[in-house]
Amino acid sequence: MVEFKVIEKEKLTIVKFELTTGVVSPEELKKFKTPQVNLTKGVIISGRGPIWLHSFLAHEYHPAVWVGHLDPRLNGAVIVQSHTKNIKEGDIIQLG
Amino acid sequence: MVEFKVIEKEKLTIVKFELTTGVVSPEELKKFKTPQVNLTKGVIISGRGPIWLHSFLAHEYHPAVWVGHLDPRLNGAVIVQSHTKNIKEGDIIQLG
Repeated sequence: MVEFKVIEKEKLTIVKFELTTGVVSPEELKKFKTPQVNLTKGVIISGRGPIWLHSFLAHEYHPAVWVGHLDPRLNGAVIVQSHTKNIKEGDIIQLG
Repeated sequence: MVEFKVIEKEKLTIVKFELTTGVVSPEELKKFKTPQVNLTKGVIISGRGPIWLHSFLAHEYHPAVWVGHLDPRLNGAVIVQSHTKNIKEGDIIQLG
């Protein structure tokens, strides 16, 4: 089971998921309700879970200005999609 | 450093990456040359590496019929994007 928490910052939204039972099955993607966010901001996806869950969410939020994944080892989010010139794929957005 | 290997099957292509130095820096995404594949087939992304690398590659291959990520724990690839009715997000494609 996946639960979401949305943290809205000035220029971005953090969509944080938690696997309440510790696991998630691919089947769950079929009935997913991802939180709506302000698409004029960037979206950072955060959470401990499988790669395919992160990737699915990145695709869901594709209309947002940019999408990144939090990488705790880098203490920031790595941008993987962007529709703005100021922020490029491979950029790291530090979370203060 | 990232090296790619492309394995073409009848109905899908496996794009397998390897981190030749054991690590990859987000900076590398800026100069990435991802292998071209037949977009009328599905694409399975495979490799041990960070979530953001997988997610970046899924976005690169978005024009393909479908995109999935190999999950060794499931012995198959989980579909995260699809443009065909036969294959849906959350489906698992077994690799024989």
